[in-house]
Amino acid sequence: MDQIVEIICVGNELLIGKTLNTNAQWLTKRVTTLGLTTRRVTVVGDNIDEISSAINEAIQRSPGFILTTGGLGPTFDDKTLEGLAKALERSMEVNEEALNMVKDKYLSYVQEGRMEAAELTPHRVKMAKLPEGATPLRNPVGTAPAVSIEHENVTIIALPGVPSEMKSIFDDSVSSVLKQAAHGVTFFETSIETTKVIESEMAPLIEKVMHSNPHVYIKSHPKGAERVPRIEFHLSTTAKDSGTARKEVSKALLQLRELIQQKGGKIKPIKSET
Amino acid sequence: MDQIVEIICVGNELLIGKTLNTNAQWLTKRVTTLGLTTRRVTVVGDNIDEISSAINEAIQRSPGFILTTGGLGPTFDDKTLEGLAKALERSMEVNEEALNMVKDKYLSYVQEGRMEAAELTPHRVKMAKLPEGATPLRNPVGTAPAVSIEHENVTIIALPGVPSEMKSIFDDSVSSVLKQAAHGVTFFETSIETTKVIESEMAPLIEKVMHSNPHVYIKSHPKGAERVPRIEFHLSTTAKDSGTARKEVSKALLQLRELIQQKGGKIKPIKSET
Repeated sequence: MDQIVEIICVGNELLIGKTLNTNAQWLTKRVTTLGLTTRRVTVVGDNIDEISSAINEAIQRSPGFILTTGGLGPTFDDKTLEGLAKALERSMEVNEEALNMVKDKYLSYVQEGRMEAAELTPHRVKMAKLPEGATPLRNPVGTAPAVSIEHENVTIIALPGVPSEMKSIFDDSVSSVLKQAAHGVTFFETSIETTKVIESEMAPLIEKVMHSNPHVYIKSHPKGAERVPRIEFHLSTTAKDSGTARKEVSKALLQLRELIQQKGGKIKPIKSET
Repeated sequence: MDQIVEIICVGNELLIGKTLNTNAQWLTKRVTTLGLTTRRVTVVGDNIDEISSAINEAIQRSPGFILTTGGLGPTFDDKTLEGLAKALERSMEVNEEALNMVKDKYLSYVQEGRMEAAELTPHRVKMAKLPEGATPLRNPVGTAPAVSIEHENVTIIALPGVPSEMKSIFDDSVSSVLKQAAHGVTFFETSIETTKVIESEMAPLIEKVMHSNPHVYIKSHPKGAERVPRIEFHLSTTAKDSGTARKEVSKALLQLRELIQQKGGKIKPIKSET
C-alpha cells in the first residue's frame, strides 16, 4: 500500500464554509502527478479527539502516507501535533532541531525589522513541541516547521494550513519522498468537451470504450443544466512509463470521439495536461 | 446529536485534484448558517466499498444528518446509491415515484427539442433504482432525483454532484428539514484584518479575550508570508437568537480590537456576515 495516500485537513474554517479547501485540491493533484493514489480526504475541526480519531482510522487502512494540513501554528487552536501524539500514543517534547528552526526564524524577523524582540515565549516554543520521534521539516516561508513521523509502516507528514507554506514545504521536502514511493508510475490525463449529446445517451458508449481499453478510466462531467447539453469527458490512466500512458489514453480517446460524432455530438478542442 | 451533520463527497475527480470541492464549502456554509454543525467532511472515490465504509463510519458517529454529494447519474461510475444500499444492508429497487420523475424529465427534454426520443433505457432507469425504503427528492434542474432515507435516527440525504443541481435540491427540499432540526439556534460571524502584529504575539491575547467571552470562538488566519504581517481574525458564535449571538461577538470584538491597537496593530474595516 506504499502508493496509497490519505489526506487529513484540519481546521474549523473548513467545516463552517469560511474557507474553500484549495489545499486538498493542490495536494491530490500533486500526489496524482507523482504517480501515487489518494484514496481518501478527511476534513476535521480543531479538536484533539477528532484529529486523533481521523489519524487512527487512516492508519488502520494502511496507506503508505498520511498527509495532514493545518493546525501547526502558535495559537491555542493549533492542535494537530497533539492529536497526532494522542493517535500514536507518544508524548510531546520540545524538539531541539525544531526549536532552532523557530529561533532562527524569529531572529531573521528581527533583522528584517518585522519585530523588535525575538524572545521565545511559550506560544513560540509550542511550534517546536513535537510527538516523540518526529523529525521537523524546514518551513522556507513561514515559522512553524512541518513534521514527519514513521508509525507502523505509515509515513505521516504534518504540513501547515497556510497554502504558501504548505506548498513550499511539500516541494522542498515531501515531493521527492513520494516520487520514490511511486516507483516510476506515471499518470496521464486528457479532456474533451462535447455539446449536443446527453449523458444518459453516452453512458453505454463510455462502457464500450472502457471495455476495450481496460486501463483507461473515462468519467463524464455534465456541465450545468443548459438548453444545449455540455459534457466534459475526462480520460486518465497510470502506467509504468509516460509513453505507454499517453498511448493508451490516445487510443481510447480516438474511439470515444468517433462514437460521439456518430451520435451527432460536437467536440471542442482538446485540453491536455500531464 | 440532531444538530450534527456529516458530509460525504463522492467522486474520483476530487481525489485526483481535477475538481475543487466547492460543493463541500457551499454545503458547510449553508449548514452553519442554518444553525447546525458540520463535524466532518469525507471525500471518497467512485467505489462501492469506499462509499459504503464512509457512510457506515459516519452512522457509527450518530450525527443527525449525513449529506452526500455526487454519484447519482446514469453512468457506470455513479455508485453512491449502491454504496448506500450496501451500508444499510438494503436491496436496490426501482422506485415508482423516482421513475416517474425521470420519465417526465426526458419527456420534457423531447418537448424542448433537446433530444428525439425519451425511451427508458437501462441507464435511465438506473437513476430511479433506490435503496429499499428511500424517498426521491425532485431535481428541479437536472435528471437524477436526490434521495432521502432514514436509518437508526440518522437522516441520510444523497444529492447530485453537479453544483447547480445540488444547490437547487438543497434549497427546495433539504434546507427546511435542517432548519427545523436547529431549533432556532443562530450562527453569527465577523472578521477583521490586521497588519503590523504577528500571530505568535497575538496568541496569548486571543486566549485572554476568549476566556472572558466563553461562547465566542476566535480564530486567526495568517495571510501568506509577507514582509508586513497580515492576519485575519474571525469571530463566531451560535446562540438561541440572533440578537444574543450578535451581542456576544460584538463584545469580544471590541476587546480584541483594543488589544491589537495596544500592540501597535492596524485594523482594516470590518467585513461582517450573518
